[in-house]
Amino acid sequence: MISKVLIANRGEIALRIARTCQELGLATVAAHSSADRDSAVVRFADETVQVGPGPAKSSYLNIPAIIEAARARGADAIHPGYGFLSENADFAEVCEAEGFTFIGPSAEVMGRLGDKSSARAIMLDAGLPLLPGSRVALSSAQEAKELAAEIGYPVIIKAVAGGGGRGMAVVREPGEFDRAFATTKANAQAVFRDGRLYVERYLDSARHVEIQVLGDGHGGVVHLGARDCSLQRRHQKLVEESPAPRLDPRIVAEMGEAAVRGARAADYTGAGTFEFLVDGTGRFFFMEVNCRLQVEHPVTEMVTGIDLVREQLRVAAGEPLGFTQDDVEHRGVAIECRVNAEDPARDFAPTPGTLTRCVLPGGPFVRVDTHIEHGYKIPALYDSLLAKLIVWAPDREAALAKMRRALAETEIRGAGVTTTAEFLAGLLDHPRVRASEHDTALIGSLVG
Amino acid sequence: MISKVLIANRGEIALRIARTCQELGLATVAAHSSADRDSAVVRFADETVQVGPGPAKSSYLNIPAIIEAARARGADAIHPGYGFLSENADFAEVCEAEGFTFIGPSAEVMGRLGDKSSARAIMLDAGLPLLPGSRVALSSAQEAKELAAEIGYPVIIKAVAGGGGRGMAVVREPGEFDRAFATTKANAQAVFRDGRLYVERYLDSARHVEIQVLGDGHGGVVHLGARDCSLQRRHQKLVEESPAPRLDPRIVAEMGEAAVRGARAADYTGAGTFEFLVDGTGRFFFMEVNCRLQVEHPVTEMVTGIDLVREQLRVAAGEPLGFTQDDVEHRGVAIECRVNAEDPARDFAPTPGTLTRCVLPGGPFVRVDTHIEHGYKIPALYDSLLAKLIVWAPDREAALAKMRRALAETEIRGAGVTTTAEFLAGLLDHPRVRASEHDTALIGSLVG
Repeated sequence: MISKVLIANRGEIALRIARTCQELGLATVAAHSSADRDSAVVRFADETVQVGPGPAKSSYLNIPAIIEAARARGADAIHPGYGFLSENADFAEVCEAEGFTFIGPSAEVMGRLGDKSSARAIMLDAGLPLLPGSRVALSSAQEAKELAAEIGYPVIIKAVAGGGGRGMAVVREPGEFDRAFATTKANAQAVFRDGRLYVERYLDSARHVEIQVLGDGHGGVVHLGARDCSLQRRHQKLVEESPAPRLDPRIVAEMGEAAVRGARAADYTGAGTFEFLVDGTGRFFFMEVNCRLQVEHPVTEMVTGIDLVREQLRVAAGEPLGFTQDDVEHRGVAIECRVNAEDPARDFAPTPGTLTRCVLPGGPFVRVDTHIEHGYKIPALYDSLLAKLIVWAPDREAALAKMRRALAETEIRGAGVTTTAEFLAGLLDHPRVRASEHDTALIGSLVG
Repeated sequence: MISKVLIANRGEIALRIARTCQELGLATVAAHSSADRDSAVVRFADETVQVGPGPAKSSYLNIPAIIEAARARGADAIHPGYGFLSENADFAEVCEAEGFTFIGPSAEVMGRLGDKSSARAIMLDAGLPLLPGSRVALSSAQEAKELAAEIGYPVIIKAVAGGGGRGMAVVREPGEFDRAFATTKANAQAVFRDGRLYVERYLDSARHVEIQVLGDGHGGVVHLGARDCSLQRRHQKLVEESPAPRLDPRIVAEMGEAAVRGARAADYTGAGTFEFLVDGTGRFFFMEVNCRLQVEHPVTEMVTGIDLVREQLRVAAGEPLGFTQDDVEHRGVAIECRVNAEDPARDFAPTPGTLTRCVLPGGPFVRVDTHIEHGYKIPALYDSLLAKLIVWAPDREAALAKMRRALAETEIRGAGVTTTAEFLAGLLDHPRVRASEHDTALIGSLVG
């Protein structure tokens, strides 16, 4: 059982988690940095605790401070949200050791799946299709380069401990390999404190399609269909939708079955995401498992009617899933746009500042997940996500029209503040997006 | 075909209509009073036109000014919203005569159903169950009193031209009858310019349950299930939900069939609502037809996934409904709360003022239909509805929990401004509401 949840995160996701906790009658503790002391979740939560100064490493990544805060407030569970400590197996382990329920899979499962080469091995054994690549982490540039030659270019070099679109490099010809390997290794060492890398075939023209799974630890594992997240800029998703457009439902069913098989093989519990690449012929390849709630989880909620945070909390409390695969019904189409405080004209540079005007869209089948409001100060310290606009409609064309309307309604202004809302509206009007013919390369081709 | 819609209304409903128009690619003209020149719909619409000064009779009820505005802007259709001219058959007739498509049923149908005694006669002929009462309008107090004695007390005296909860009086014993009749007649004459009255049996303990219908004028008539609107204060709805709780689905199906039969008998086109009273045994009685979009239409949209304004516009453009009765699927439970600028401690007196803080709820399965924002000036001239909070959840208990959360998140403040949000939260916690045992008398018993 769980009765009080400490939320070790900030921004829209901290508020989103607190909302579901409150609806379930669970007390909430907002663990926040000093920079976020006036934020919406701090106002909303039942209790608050400051875990450190602004920089994330002193607060949202400060494991001892978070554990101490949970103990001091009498929390019995900790929700890490996404980013920050959400995929940190060490943190999950400390939570377990200190007697707190970590809302997510076990530290052991996170460790196995967080190591991308170990995850590849598990999924290969479970019969999931993988792109040609290394089965284990590569220790030397020479070994990696030989493998790349065997696989065939282009290849992608990825950090074993990577995630969230960071720690990767595409290499198009052997002459570029050594430098890319060295740079990625140095980056991975700096960012993830783990310089191990692996290599796999890179698909130039592919769609990023992911399957949401839920496992309850009592034998119940279901998938909630697919999300297309192909509209990315530098491997960061900007627009996501469910179901995946122009993808044969039989392929989606196969992907769902593969993800459930993979989740069972990994003893997965809680909410997780199996990421796949889908090529132009509809062949799909496992990429990685994200052992956490995704930023884009609302599109799945909108089409299935299932609150994913509610299911995470239920599973963490030891309850079985309240439904089977056959009970999961998909209705209509949902699209999410991430409105960031970034200036598209200046290579998406962050635009911190204070909001002097903040009008967010509403009305039929529009959901806004955000922590911003009139007077909000966008800090320079954290990522630039301001609001997620999520729309639902019976079909994709109506959903696109609704998103255009929602973006047009959005007014977020302040001295020095620019958002991506207008850029996103233009993107949705691109003929290839309208025709569902976009892939992961599209935005790069537009903004150079 | 329709290409440009003039919206002859204000507040949340004007914006809600403009949103769907924009999603359908229809141009919008916001017809507004001088008092509303800075409102959200004026900013949102493609074009705007001021139709008169603040008082409704000079602007939103000013038929010549609205027709002239539609002509000047080249609109080809007029949406009346709810209230104001929405059930005015004369206005519909002028629209038709001047070549504008009136978004609603024909003037003839509105005339027949707007006259409550004529509506009763049509529905009686169509086999709908009615409470005992007068078949025709009553000309004299003496005649009415004799009928009341025959029917048995308590009775309710209603204006033939009434609607929106106005122009009615409950009479509990013969000694009160004459005065109540005279007062209601005078009121009806003043408000509706039609002093005709009728009388029917009054149910002290009944639920107000209504059926949403859609007719396309090509033979397609469907119903979209039931809404319970029993939580009323002086016949004004405060909370609505769909489906109707604790009502046998077989009874709802019977009511739906009755409403479809009634709509066919009346040649109904567009969106309309059949209002019924349901007694403690599940017997239902036709009350009246509302020939317009209802304030509470969003709860039906949330459970069916059907955008009612979209269907209104499609039907007005001459298209058949895109679905049949069998296609209509109901999922989960939706609840709406009307947050008004009223002070419950001062007998719900209006509280006009300027908003210095305006935080509205968001997140999973929460919809907000509103025109307010930071800095909004609540005018004293119009009704006090500030925002409709609509939530959806898989079941009623979860929906109530979500609404409590949404109300708790709502912060609407300004000098002199009080809202009903807290009162509504208390109401939802009432044991009879939680147990779905509320009826139309509950709020009266609470606030006296």
